[in-house]
Amino acid sequence: MFGIFQTTRKLRTSLRLLSRAGLPPVDLQVQLLLRVRCPQSATFSRELHLGPDGSASSPAAAPQRLPFSRVTVEDLTFFRKTLPGRVITDPDLVQSSNEDWLKSVRGSSEVLLRPQTTQEVSQILSYCQSRNLAVNPQGGNTGLVGGSVPVYDEIILSTSLMNNIISFDKISGILTCQAGCVLENLSLYLEERDYIMPLDLGAKGSCQIGGNVATNAGGLRLLRYGSLHGTVLGLEVVLADGQVLDCLSTLRKDNTGYDLKQLFIGSEGTLGVITAVSILCPRKPKSVNVVFLGCETFDQLLKSFQLCKGMLGEILSAFEFLDSECMRLLNTHLKLANPISDCPLYILIETSGSDSGHDSQKLHNFLEEAMTSLLVTDGTTLWSLRERVTEALTHDGFTYKYDISLPVERIYQLVTDMRQHLGKRARSVVGYGHVGDGNLHLNITSSAKDPALLASIEPFIYEWTAKFHGSISAEHGLGLKKRNYIYYSKSRPTVAVMGKMKTLLDPKGILNPYKTLPDDL
Amino acid sequence: MFGIFQTTRKLRTSLRLLSRAGLPPVDLQVQLLLRVRCPQSATFSRELHLGPDGSASSPAAAPQRLPFSRVTVEDLTFFRKTLPGRVITDPDLVQSSNEDWLKSVRGSSEVLLRPQTTQEVSQILSYCQSRNLAVNPQGGNTGLVGGSVPVYDEIILSTSLMNNIISFDKISGILTCQAGCVLENLSLYLEERDYIMPLDLGAKGSCQIGGNVATNAGGLRLLRYGSLHGTVLGLEVVLADGQVLDCLSTLRKDNTGYDLKQLFIGSEGTLGVITAVSILCPRKPKSVNVVFLGCETFDQLLKSFQLCKGMLGEILSAFEFLDSECMRLLNTHLKLANPISDCPLYILIETSGSDSGHDSQKLHNFLEEAMTSLLVTDGTTLWSLRERVTEALTHDGFTYKYDISLPVERIYQLVTDMRQHLGKRARSVVGYGHVGDGNLHLNITSSAKDPALLASIEPFIYEWTAKFHGSISAEHGLGLKKRNYIYYSKSRPTVAVMGKMKTLLDPKGILNPYKTLPDDL
Repeated sequence: MFGIFQTTRKLRTSLRLLSRAGLPPVDLQVQLLLRVRCPQSATFSRELHLGPDGSASSPAAAPQRLPFSRVTVEDLTFFRKTLPGRVITDPDLVQSSNEDWLKSVRGSSEVLLRPQTTQEVSQILSYCQSRNLAVNPQGGNTGLVGGSVPVYDEIILSTSLMNNIISFDKISGILTCQAGCVLENLSLYLEERDYIMPLDLGAKGSCQIGGNVATNAGGLRLLRYGSLHGTVLGLEVVLADGQVLDCLSTLRKDNTGYDLKQLFIGSEGTLGVITAVSILCPRKPKSVNVVFLGCETFDQLLKSFQLCKGMLGEILSAFEFLDSECMRLLNTHLKLANPISDCPLYILIETSGSDSGHDSQKLHNFLEEAMTSLLVTDGTTLWSLRERVTEALTHDGFTYKYDISLPVERIYQLVTDMRQHLGKRARSVVGYGHVGDGNLHLNITSSAKDPALLASIEPFIYEWTAKFHGSISAEHGLGLKKRNYIYYSKSRPTVAVMGKMKTLLDPKGILNPYKTLPDDL
Repeated sequence: MFGIFQTTRKLRTSLRLLSRAGLPPVDLQVQLLLRVRCPQSATFSRELHLGPDGSASSPAAAPQRLPFSRVTVEDLTFFRKTLPGRVITDPDLVQSSNEDWLKSVRGSSEVLLRPQTTQEVSQILSYCQSRNLAVNPQGGNTGLVGGSVPVYDEIILSTSLMNNIISFDKISGILTCQAGCVLENLSLYLEERDYIMPLDLGAKGSCQIGGNVATNAGGLRLLRYGSLHGTVLGLEVVLADGQVLDCLSTLRKDNTGYDLKQLFIGSEGTLGVITAVSILCPRKPKSVNVVFLGCETFDQLLKSFQLCKGMLGEILSAFEFLDSECMRLLNTHLKLANPISDCPLYILIETSGSDSGHDSQKLHNFLEEAMTSLLVTDGTTLWSLRERVTEALTHDGFTYKYDISLPVERIYQLVTDMRQHLGKRARSVVGYGHVGDGNLHLNITSSAKDPALLASIEPFIYEWTAKFHGSISAEHGLGLKKRNYIYYSKSRPTVAVMGKMKTLLDPKGILNPYKTLPDDL
């Protein structure tokens, strides 16, 4: 009745890389397919920065360019002296850094700087602040909310050449490295030493640890290893004035004063440039199991989740779900067969442990119990069903994508309410996501871009989320696209304090302007 | 050869309560036994605030009183109107809140306020800021660094009556409660619901969750469940001007703007008063095992730690050590027999899991392996040996106590270096602590208080710790006593930014003055 399959991480990684290398614009809220070439002049088209409804007054549209200086020949001379051979101005080379990987937003920067050391970053920022030049810090440029590329002509400060591992303590599992290390490279380095990174993302082949920390990336291991606020032990950050803030502790415990590094985790490059990271890494699990189950109602699914937390306990590493609409799209567009009998909802459970015999036995006990109490109706495996939903969606039409955090018992209610609310106006309304984290990915498709449909979705979805004290961005951040929606999740006094922090640390506002903070601050 | 014993939490709790209710001034750096009665006048004896060497110029001595207003009859009228029946001015009743539980520091406040609601805290702080009255926020008053009591006549703002549980979500395990809930009460509440708090402390019977968060308490479960920066999901905080900062999220993921709540975790009441907390709670483990082992060298101990992390993996919940000097004091002063053969070092390992059969088997496999490779030489049980070291020390003479965080491979080197450095000047130099967290408790005893001995210990110990990038306060905070030692663990630019944060959030400096930040700011 049930099959339990061991699945290797290699398989999962290759599937993810496939889905990443392919097309699907993952979690793209608004897709503006820009065909204009990068402008070489210092004038900027407002058309590039319209909101999802095509208007400049949309909350997602970029504001007017702020009165920063423009890069001069003298500035370039300084940069070339500071970073010999690492100042890129060839438009073709700057182009890929101007555009996000979803190709949904694009800036028109003419300068890409590639420092190798913290000292160089410090010199650049000190100079830029004195010259009132805006700077766009950039890691792997895999963000989903328009936070990683310039909006106008901000200088792009890439951390790509800051890719050295500084140290790894194989007793404590503490890794210290420069911000530009690619997540997958760190994972490979650690796996050879019997450790793993505490985070894993679909974009692991491109994203950098500095960007992961700056955006507080969540990903596939959060349920088990917690957020970066817990696993990041230290940061080195260069402030807007070039001052180096050395909080690069490699200690699990340090209660000497305020934990300033926390402020930079998730600040999306607006408070400082992260140049190095120290992070606590877990041991590599010796055994990984995956099961795939069907169930009849979301209430049953939640009961399974509770049972699972009790019976699998310390080995549970993922509890994901998808609905029958997702399965239909997987069948239709990707020819992926449902490995079990048809059900309204499907659950994917992963365990990671240190003893394969024990882990299998715990899983079997859980499945037996879940069967006895009729919570699940059938089961078999495969992560690909969960991971390729995004890809299947791209074949279904234009997709409106949302990343919502809610009390776990509410997450599916939003899907059914939205389905009812939109009726026949939407082609498909599908829900999937991380039950363990209370994180829903809600997707709505239509035959083409449809401003009327969008007007039915927003602000309905944000108001619904706010009503149940959810977050309108569980793991993707605010960036450019969602900055003005912040009040749906944060109170005005809280946002006002954020603004004061920004002013304190970056008084001229040169770091990643137009991002994260709302325009009315 | 080896005995594995199940030990109940009840036993451990009662042992801890015993040691708490009894005498031992745990981790007291300097013990000034004050016999003066609480002064009723508005003059303050400097003698109360001398440093460990008895001088007013010691870094640990309190600075002069700052020019805050003094409480007037009109102020009391306002407080009584705001908090009817909950304004305490009877000196005998205020006394216990003026003195820390180690009886090492004492203030001379004449007013104790006991709000019940966030709104009341807001009204009080708004009033105090307008009147320039200093405020000492106080939870369970179990701190070890003089952070929880007034230094002079600061108004004591107690959270003790803010002790309601607001909600508990039994699916996600997220608890939301007022700041004054006593940790043990929360634990009992959760255990009835098959959950536990992610932290556990010796002081659990008195300490409050708000104070735990304000001091970023570590404790016995950090190795397994991580720090409060990861488990605290939300905070409600009242700022110095009375503004309520509502960051009381109950979501595992929320990436909408800066994570401001992090700034208050570990800020020791100097940036705001925490009024409510939401926290992610783990499931109660079904099986707990404890083993006690001996080993020959610290290098062997570290190898055992590595082996243990690999073989026990996800069920490891504590890896503690003590040295033969600790064992000698336990034998001599408490008549506790060494349950195994004599060794230079002893290890205590605890596992917590969801399946007792699996857990025992993992432990046996580990012990077999450890034996084969001759890393451990003997073993049996008992947490009490680890937990009563502090008590044994109090019988050995005057104790200088330190709480140091270091790269784990260095922690015992500090003990041996100190032993060599002090030679016969010290009666005993003993080391114990949390190997898993890189946290050493180093204790030095002498027949009586000895300024010459102290001068040999400090700043030697701080310089040694700084040299190896350690922390001079792993889990106890800085409070009054250690505030001026902050530069041993934090750079000047970092401390300067802390000072700016303080000025931003508390411009008049009314919240917990003389604490955490150094005098030179």
